[in-house]
Parts: sequence; structure tokens; C-alpha cells
Amino acid sequence: MTLSNPPRIGPLPSGPRDAITDVAGVTVGHCTLAHDACQTGVTVVRPHGGNVYTDKVPAAASVLNGFGKSIGLVQVDELGVLETPIALTNTFSVGAVAQAQIRAAIADNPEIGRAWPTVNPLVFECNDGYLNDIQAMVVAGDHYARALSGAGADVAQGAIGAGRGMSSFGVKGGIGTASRVVSCDGRHDGERYTVGALVLSNFGTPESLILAGEHVGARLAAKLAEQTAAPEKGSIIMVVATDAPLDARQLRRLSLRAGAGLARTGSVFGHGSGDIAFAFSTAYTVPHGTDAPMPAVAMLHESRLDPLFRAAADSVEQAIVHALWHAEAVTGRDGHRRAALREMLAF
Amino acid sequence: MTLSNPPRIGPLPSGPRDAITDVAGVTVGHCTLAHDACQTGVTVVRPHGGNVYTDKVPAAASVLNGFGKSIGLVQVDELGVLETPIALTNTFSVGAVAQAQIRAAIADNPEIGRAWPTVNPLVFECNDGYLNDIQAMVVAGDHYARALSGAGADVAQGAIGAGRGMSSFGVKGGIGTASRVVSCDGRHDGERYTVGALVLSNFGTPESLILAGEHVGARLAAKLAEQTAAPEKGSIIMVVATDAPLDARQLRRLSLRAGAGLARTGSVFGHGSGDIAFAFSTAYTVPHGTDAPMPAVAMLHESRLDPLFRAAADSVEQAIVHALWHAEAVTGRDGHRRAALREMLAF
Amino acid sequence: MTLSNPPRIGPLPSGPRDAITDVAGVTVGHCTLAHDACQTGVTVVRPHGGNVYTDKVPAAASVLNGFGKSIGLVQVDELGVLETPIALTNTFSVGAVAQAQIRAAIADNPEIGRAWPTVNPLVFECNDGYLNDIQAMVVAGDHYARALSGAGADVAQGAIGAGRGMSSFGVKGGIGTASRVVSCDGRHDGERYTVGALVLSNFGTPESLILAGEHVGARLAAKLAEQTAAPEKGSIIMVVATDAPLDARQLRRLSLRAGAGLARTGSVFGHGSGDIAFAFSTAYTVPHGTDAPMPAVAMLHESRLDPLFRAAADSVEQAIVHALWHAEAVTGRDGHRRAALREMLAF
Amino acid sequence: MTLSNPPRIGPLPSGPRDAITDVAGVTVGHCTLAHDACQTGVTVVRPHGGNVYTDKVPAAASVLNGFGKSIGLVQVDELGVLETPIALTNTFSVGAVAQAQIRAAIADNPEIGRAWPTVNPLVFECNDGYLNDIQAMVVAGDHYARALSGAGADVAQGAIGAGRGMSSFGVKGGIGTASRVVSCDGRHDGERYTVGALVLSNFGTPESLILAGEHVGARLAAKLAEQTAAPEKGSIIMVVATDAPLDARQLRRLSLRAGAGLARTGSVFGHGSGDIAFAFSTAYTVPHGTDAPMPAVAMLHESRLDPLFRAAADSVEQAIVHALWHAEAVTGRDGHRRAALREMLAF
Repeated sequence: MTLSNPPRIGPLPSGPRDAITDVAGVTVGHCTLAHDACQTGVTVVRPHGGNVYTDKVPAAASVLNGFGKSIGLVQVDELGVLETPIALTNTFSVGAVAQAQIRAAIADNPEIGRAWPTVNPLVFECNDGYLNDIQAMVVAGDHYARALSGAGADVAQGAIGAGRGMSSFGVKGGIGTASRVVSCDGRHDGERYTVGALVLSNFGTPESLILAGEHVGARLAAKLAEQTAAPEKGSIIMVVATDAPLDARQLRRLSLRAGAGLARTGSVFGHGSGDIAFAFSTAYTVPHGTDAPMPAVAMLHESRLDPLFRAAADSVEQAIVHALWHAEAVTGRDGHRRAALREMLAF
Repeated sequence: MTLSNPPRIGPLPSGPRDAITDVAGVTVGHCTLAHDACQTGVTVVRPHGGNVYTDKVPAAASVLNGFGKSIGLVQVDELGVLETPIALTNTFSVGAVAQAQIRAAIADNPEIGRAWPTVNPLVFECNDGYLNDIQAMVVAGDHYARALSGAGADVAQGAIGAGRGMSSFGVKGGIGTASRVVSCDGRHDGERYTVGALVLSNFGTPESLILAGEHVGARLAAKLAEQTAAPEKGSIIMVVATDAPLDARQLRRLSLRAGAGLARTGSVFGHGSGDIAFAFSTAYTVPHGTDAPMPAVAMLHESRLDPLFRAAADSVEQAIVHALWHAEAVTGRDGHRRAALREMLAF
Repeated sequence: MTLSNPPRIGPLPSGPRDAITDVAGVTVGHCTLAHDACQTGVTVVRPHGGNVYTDKVPAAASVLNGFGKSIGLVQVDELGVLETPIALTNTFSVGAVAQAQIRAAIADNPEIGRAWPTVNPLVFECNDGYLNDIQAMVVAGDHYARALSGAGADVAQGAIGAGRGMSSFGVKGGIGTASRVVSCDGRHDGERYTVGALVLSNFGTPESLILAGEHVGARLAAKLAEQTAAPEKGSIIMVVATDAPLDARQLRRLSLRAGAGLARTGSVFGHGSGDIAFAFSTAYTVPHGTDAPMPAVAMLHESRLDPLFRAAADSVEQAIVHALWHAEAVTGRDGHRRAALREMLAF
Repeated sequence: MTLSNPPRIGPLPSGPRDAITDVAGVTVGHCTLAHDACQTGVTVVRPHGGNVYTDKVPAAASVLNGFGKSIGLVQVDELGVLETPIALTNTFSVGAVAQAQIRAAIADNPEIGRAWPTVNPLVFECNDGYLNDIQAMVVAGDHYARALSGAGADVAQGAIGAGRGMSSFGVKGGIGTASRVVSCDGRHDGERYTVGALVLSNFGTPESLILAGEHVGARLAAKLAEQTAAPEKGSIIMVVATDAPLDARQLRRLSLRAGAGLARTGSVFGHGSGDIAFAFSTAYTVPHGTDAPMPAVAMLHESRLDPLFRAAADSVEQAIVHALWHAEAVTGRDGHRRAALREMLAF
């Protein structure tokens, strides 16, 4: 392979940034902790620039394999809304970040815990324990706050934020993002919708890698055999955003299609991998206050969803490719090192 | 009503303690924080006295209403096992207690986060914000450790542990427990199984209360109208234990029957109430280590489950009655007070 | 008990008919087969008077216990709409009635199976094999057609239609219906919504019966011991209709509250009982045609749902009471007889 | 492409037949109806040669996209067992085949509908309405009986049985099967398990086809543009069998991996496609009779499942390839014709 750009997935056009932030209003921020045995961090996806608690967004999740320790999905399943930014971090830091989310929500909405009884934090995780000394549990509330305050439309990818210590296919994984733009009515002048994905990629054995359709796993596995690459338990978190008007039931359908993109990279949703997809729409908000008028929104007709489904699958596959493409080599705890994919495959 | 003992639910016999600890090996511990505006705590249910990580117990949950912020159910749904003690606390302390569970698991199993990549904390919550200054987030890891180390077969009930600040039906709620003993083969000399329940009761509006079949809600509501009883968002956590040999699918069925007991107290699984039931069996354990032999256990025939279902419903209803019966009046934040049910109904 | 009217459940007012048809547009029809060993039939609930295929209604289901043989729920779960009338019949006639539903849908929409590929029949069942010679499989497409064509706002109850051969609590069960009217905004002059329920009641052991809060099971069981009452595997189908604007996710929440009403009659969702609740809204329709505009409807705010939840639970409990109250004694196959509850309890 | 054999998926070895019947005891039978506008049929998968009602097999399903009209999954989800052969047919014949399954079960077990109250038919479907006059509803009980009685270890593939009228990717689809053999303990001399798949393939748009990793969709779509290929609503049923000792929860996990194989052929689980996976184990049986001893089986340790997951994904992908490879061109209703893939791609 001799490539100067990451391989491209499918024929659908991307948005201007080829990033989840092509969905208008969505921003992403990172806080990266990288020194010695500490190789970890926090990544935040904000669904819009306002107060997500008072103006919730419709949301839903699919659990492709539930070997995962997230917090927040029970309530999302029931109520179909997201009411905090989405946080990603390492497995043993979910609790600390959830506490920080609650504090941040209270700071913006002092009635939480008073007149408004409660708030539902939402934190996803992967296990970066190969490179990061996860037992040290160093991620603290302030790291969440920093990731949140730095959120913007430009999304750094690779070994950054929550992706700092993550591995995929025996090489360095981490954060990747992508987007696709589709029309749902089959007309050239029809309304266009954007679907964006952001992944925290920490899954996959070397021999299973399919890179943009090419089965490069055998080659990668052969290269890695020269190294001390311990097998690693994986996981991938796939966040899908869209500006199409969908309700929570439709968003659950959309989220499941992340699994199709994931499978095309070689995953069979391995036993030890927490493979979770989460989808939200920015097309409308749901007010917290009982007295505020509810949105009267015409959702997309069910039979128009297929382009969005394809866009979700392609965006997720592309985001995984981006994570692998952009991730630089990292050396962490006990001298463990993950090479960059580009070193190994010599693009 | 003139009663010296709590009203009794149904004809099934109880175990010797009428508590979840009648299921052999199960223990319960509390850590209570009770001073001024701080009225909260932690309660722990240990499924057995050994190392729950290396010797997991089969488990499953039913979400009757998912307005709740637990951590851990995604993995229980997938893998069907419990690998830590069960922790109960207030809504804003789930993260802190989950971190403490991880630390405790690592202390017992130093390879967690190393050769054994991860552990799944399991923490349930209700919102005690009426009596407790929940924004203060005072529950810390040490409180979990104290509840755990104090666990035993005698179960204190009422305004204690995680139940310290909880309310039900406009009066004081909290921790309650009960058990029932059944035979599943219809024979007088048949093998007997115990089903035990422990609830964290924080749900219910005064007018809806049905106490052991008696519709006392109107009377209670009339009494309470004299007081400053703000409406409270509820929740109930219902933990069901049994020594019957059931697999995770059967335990999910068992857990759902907690909802029948809950409904008979007047609940309709209100919108704002996180109503979650969790069931586990102590009949066998599942080894963590891949090389340990898996248990070869004959599960109960499906058609024998009905006595267990009734025992689960009755135990849960009885545990709610016990929580109300034993809960003493508590005054907490901003002078808020919850009366004891026994004051209100003058038993 | 000396009663001239069926006992009443809860304080909420009913609609004018105290029937599911109080939800405007809903109609119910029966076809009853009653001769010798043939004691069975078909009942149909039409959500509106138009073409349900071209104008679908939002819908969802909860499976409280899945020992049942319905057809149609997989698609309802995915798409959140009902596109045929709801049919109820005996266990072994689901296939025949589903075929009849397809034929009826094609008759109204000749493009089904052509330009419009398919239609999703929805048929629920209970097992009337104690009174009915269920092996004879006599229900045919014409019986569905007759039930459908006879549908109207007046709902006959008891041993009629699909309820002809059903048993509950060791006595005669069958069809029951009820309704409740609520305001969801806490104001006296607020908009009112109707919730209606129709049940096909075929569940329950004599000793477990709770009739409008009174534990009459022991008395009933004692009376029935004099008779030849074989134990019977049960089931209950609970159809809930409302004119409140709810989406499919909210309707799933509503449907689950049928279980609270069911539990208050003494059920613990027994192993052998197929306990299924299905809810739909008539507040808007979803067009089949891709080119028709989708409805832009403001759903009810989630925090306003509690009155509907209570209405669903109360309507279902009341409908069960009505089924028992109205069901006359029936003698069927092999001389099996189910007494009327009113005989047994001598109202 | 110049190939004389179907392209092969992945490095895992197949069983001797490369068919679901490599799982010992499993047999498959077809009944094909092929004349003029009638191009349809029935396919049956028998899990073992005995009485499946008295000796049930553990089973579970995953619904990847629920635009489907199967019967039987509600009970499988609850009880975790299969108690009839699995039947596949066209969409409008589910009812007729379900009735036939009930009759066949009664013929073998005359107490069904008497002392043993009921039986759960299991019928899956796809829509063959492009080639078959599906409105004619010609499939009858006798066709099921013929498919059942002809079941054997040799599996005819392509345009046969339920696959007779099915289409995939704009060409002829139908029945395909495959198997893979794996060791789950990483040892060369370890115990080997077989995973087999049988698919009823009726999904996919031409441009999306990925054939054994090669993106041939654009070429196929270009070829087909010369023809009158109407867009077709799809579906795929994926039946997975294994002799590994798994319980129903584990089988649900296994079934979901069928979706990974499906995705690798280009599917994104399209809106209009009923994509359902069903898995069962032949390692042990569950007795119907309450008094028979329950099996005391050591299930596979969860961490050993990955080879089975890969085998399920690969078997399903291979079975789809086989369906396309073996399906001959068929001309049916209104002169509609589906070409064979081999015509179009000129292997």
C-alpha cells in the first residue's frame, strides 16, 4: 500500500470536515493525559451549544455486545433523550466522569437535586489497560471539565483524549470520526441530511483486520508477530449524530447500523468487546420543563431511512479507518508499545 | 389499625429471619450518614462470603421503569453473572461507589486491570434529595468499604444505609427485607427453596398506598395534607435472591415478578420512578478463570417455577411493608421531615 | 357479597360506555362459535373506521410473560405501528386468522403483495382447550370476517367471541372492557384523554383471586373444590387504547402498566400464562405511502404520563373484573363446565 | 471472475458437507412449488431426528431488523427452547404452515391440546412476491408435511423450497448453507465444535453486493440496468446450528454474530428487510415432561465463545454466497425473471 490519504469507504459524499461535527451544532473536545504509565484521557461530544439538560436531544442506543461498563443507558432506553454531553473515557474512570457530569449539570442548572430532582449522566468506556496504568485511576472531574470547555468543530483524531491509550488490531487505535451526506427522497434537489460518527476504537485482533475492503489482517499479524503484542480485550464505542428528524425508536434503528460498518472492518462483535452504538438527532429538542411546548415535528417516513442507514454504516467504518490512520505509536506502562498502523503497513 | 407487628403478606412461610439473608450465604451491610442535611448512606448485599469476582453468581435484571441511573446492567444482561457485591446508594453517589467497588475488587484480585482486564461494578440508586442534601455528594469510597465490611446475616431495616433519606408514599421509606420458602414439586417432603428480597423503597404517592391489601391511601393522604409534604420523585430497587438452581434467563423471569409485588402496594410504575428488579441465585457459581471447570448443574424445570414467582412477588411486597413499618421519622435538609408510617396510621 | 353491579376499581371516572370504545373511533366485534365441544371464537378491535393499512396507528407491546403464540409483534416492535385490526382467538387458530387478515387487507388494498409488498397481521391468542375442542381447529377466515364486519361501539362482554371458551381463576372468563378519563395537566379545565382496555381473560388460579381489592381466592377455591375443576394453563391479552398523543416508545411504557392492573387481581405472571399487553393511540395516523406528509404532532410531555399510566392499570383491572362479572357458565368438551363467578360468590 | 467453485469465506475449515447438516442430527427438507406464476415453497430444518416436542433444544434469536412476520419468537425469547422443526416459507403462508406444524405436533403427541395444553409453532418468512403470485396463497399444510418427511442430510441449495421465488441483489437468491469447525480451547487436540448455517436469502440491492470481499456491486448493477429489475423489498432468515453446549443466553449471543456475516455481503440491515437470526444447540435436550430429569450440562465458558462467533459469521456469509452461486434463473409471475448471479458475473 502506498497511500498519502486514508482509504475511503463507499461512494457517499462526506461533509466539509468528514467529521461528526459536520452535523451542525455538534462539537467535540479532548483532554489527554500522556506521561509515562499514564496514557489515557476524556473525550466529550456535545450535541448542541446550549443547555442539554433543559433542551434535551432525542437519542437511543444499540448494544451489539454488552461486555461494557457504561452508565446512563437504562434511562436513555426508557425516555429516549440525552440530557448531558456524551463522555468517553477508560473503564475504571466511568464513575469519576459521571460525578463530574452531575457537577457540571448542577453548575448550569442549580435546581438539579432540588426542584428538578435528578440528571442522567452518560459515560462510555473502553479498556486502555495495555498502555495505561488503569489501576491508578487518575482521571478526575477536572479532566472532564477541560474536555468539555475545549469542545469545538475541529476534531483531533488518533491517540488523543479517551483514545490516548486505546489499541485496535494489535496496533494503536483511538479516536476517529467521519461523516456522510445523503438525500432521503431520491431526488437530486431533495433535502440533504448529514450523518456523522465518532468512534473510540479499541477492538480487533490483528489477523481479522479488513481495511477499506482489503483483507490486510494476515499481513499485519505476520508483522506484529515480531513484536511483543499481548492479546488485548477490546471494545468500541460508536457515536452517531444526524440532523434528520428521527424519534428515539428510529434512532435506535439507526444506531444498530453502526454494527454493519463495524463488521466490515473484520469484527464479529467478540465476546470480550463492549460494542455499543449510540445515536442522537439534532433536528429538534425536547424541553425539560413540563410547561414548555413539546416540539411538533414530522419525523422522516420510515421508508426513507435507508440512505441514513447506509450513511451510518459507512461513517462508522470510515471513522474506524481514520482512528487507525491517525493514531501515532504510543509507549506506556511497563514499556508496552503499540505501533502505528502506518508503520506496520508502510503506506 | 392496631397492630404490634407488621401486616403479613400471603400464606407462604418465611425463613427464620424473614430476610434476604435466609438465602444461605447472603449477607447485608449498611453505612449510614445521618447529621443535619446529610441523610444518606450505602447498603451492600453480598451474594456469598467468598470472592465474587473469581466465583461469580448467575444474575439478571428487569427494568420496570428505567428512570434510573444505575451502573452495571449492560454487562449483566450480556453475560448473566454478578461479579461484585450489589451496592445501593443515592443517585448522585453511583460514580463514587462504583469507583470504590473497582478498588475493592482490585484489592482482592490484583490482576484486575492487568491479566484480567476488567471488573463490572453494580450500583443501584434512588433519589433521597428531599431529606438529604444530595448536591453535596458526600458519599465516598470509604462508606462503601464500611458497608461491605459490616455485612452480616442480621439486617437492620428502615431509615438506615442507603435507605436513610428515602421516602415512600409521603412518609419515611428505606430498607426492607423479607423471605419466603417454597417447594417446587408439589410434594410435602419435596426440596425446599428460599426466595429473599431486599428493597430500597423510595416510591409512591400517599393516596395510592395499599398496605397488605388494605387501601389506606386516602386516609394517609388526608393526614399528610396537614403537613408540608412536597411531591417526591420516587424509585424502588428490588433485589431478589434465591438458592434455587436457575440460569440467567430464568432469573430474569424471576426478577420481573418483583413487579407484581410492587403493583400490589399501589404502584403503577410511575414515570419518574426508577423501578428496577435484580435477581441472583446462590445455587452455583461461575468461575472467572477460563481453565476452571464450568458447573454442570440441572436447572429447575421451567414448569416448576410458579412457586418461586409467587415467593418473589410476596417477598417484595412484604419487604416494602417492612421498610415502611420499620422506618422512623427523619428530619433532614431545610427542615424537611418525613413522618413514620406508624405515626400517621396509628398502629 | 351482595352486589347488583360489578365492583368498581379506583376513583378515576369512566367514559360513557366504560369500554375501550370510549376512545373515539375504536370499535369491537365478535364472532362466537358455541355448540357442543366447540366453544370458541374471534374478537376484533378496530383502531379506527378507516383503512388501517393506509392510515396506520402508533402502537407498541409489552410481554410480561411470553408463553404465547401471537403473530405480528416483531414488526410492531421495529416499526411502532399497527396496520391491521387486532384479532384475538384461540391458540391453534392464530394461523387461520392471520391468513384471513391478509386476505382482508388485500381486499381493501389490492396492491398488497404487488407494489406494496406486504402486510403485518396481528393476532393474539389464549388457550381455551378446557372447554373447547381446540384440536378440531374449526376457526376459519370467515369467522374473522364476521367479527370484523360486526364491529361497533357497543361491546358485549363475558363468554363471547374469542372469550367464549376461556377460563379465569377456575371459573368462566372471557372478554371484558373498561375505560378511564384523565387530565394530564393537573388542571380542572385541562384537556381530557380517555384510556380504554379490552382483555381476553384466561388466567389465574382460584386461590389467588383478588376482586377489587378483596382477597376472595380462598373462598372461591373452597367452593370450587366441590367441582371437577382441572388446573388450566392461562394467559391474558390486554389491549389498551388511548386518544392521547403518544409515540411508540411512550405507548410501550403505557402498555407495561397493564401489568400493574393485572397484578392487583392476584396474578404473578405465571410461568404458563402468556401475558401480553398491547397499546395504541388514535391521536394521529402514520401514512403508508411514502409521499404522504408525515404527521407533525406534539407528543405529551413525558412528565405528564402518570395519569395515563394509572388509567391503564385501572382500566385493565376493571376490564378483568367485567370479564368475570359478565361471563355466564359454559359447558363444553367432554362435559367440562366452568361456573360463572357470580354463582360461586353469590353476589 | 473465472471460477468453477463458489468463492470461499475465511480460513476456518468446513465440515464434510459444508452444510448445516454437518451438525450431527440436523436435517433439511424442501417442498418446491414451481409452475407459471407459482414460484414458492417450504423448507424445514429439523434439529434432531427425534420428537422435538418432548425433547426440546435450547434456542434463541436476534432481530437485526424486524420488518418481518414470523410466528413463534415471543415464546422462544421467554423459554429459550425450540419445540417444533423450523419452517421457512413465503410471507403470506406463515399462517398455513403454522397450522400444519400444530397438526404435525399433535399427530406425534396426541396430548397436545389436552393434558399438554399447547405447542409453539416457529415459522419464518421472506417475501417472494416479485417472482411468485403471493396473493394466491397456495402453500398448504401438505407442503409442510412433504418438506418435513423429505428432510435429510444432503441439502439442495438455490432456487428450491422456500427459496424458490426469492431474490437477492437483483438476481436470483434462495437457500444456501455452509459450516465451519472450530476448537474453543486453543489446543490442536482440543474438542472440536461445528457451527452450521442455513439462509433464506432474499435481500440486497445490486450495487451493494460484496462477494467474498470483492465489491462487485457496481459491475452487477451496470449489467442489471439493461434488464427490467424492479426494486424488491428484501429479508433474510439465518438459521445457525451448533453442537457446542450453550444455553439460550449464549445462543442469543451466537445468533447476533450472523449479522456480522450478513454485513460483510453489503447489507446495512435495510429498513424493508426482515433480518432475523435464529440459533440452536444440539448438545443437549430439555424434556417437556415435568418429571423427567433436567440435563446437568456444563456450558462452554463465556471466554471460549469467540471461535464460535467467528464460525457463525463466516458460515452465514458463506451460506449467502452459496445461495447466490447455486440459484438458477427463474421466470415467474407476469414474466418477471431473476437471472442467476453466474450469468451476470460470468464466472
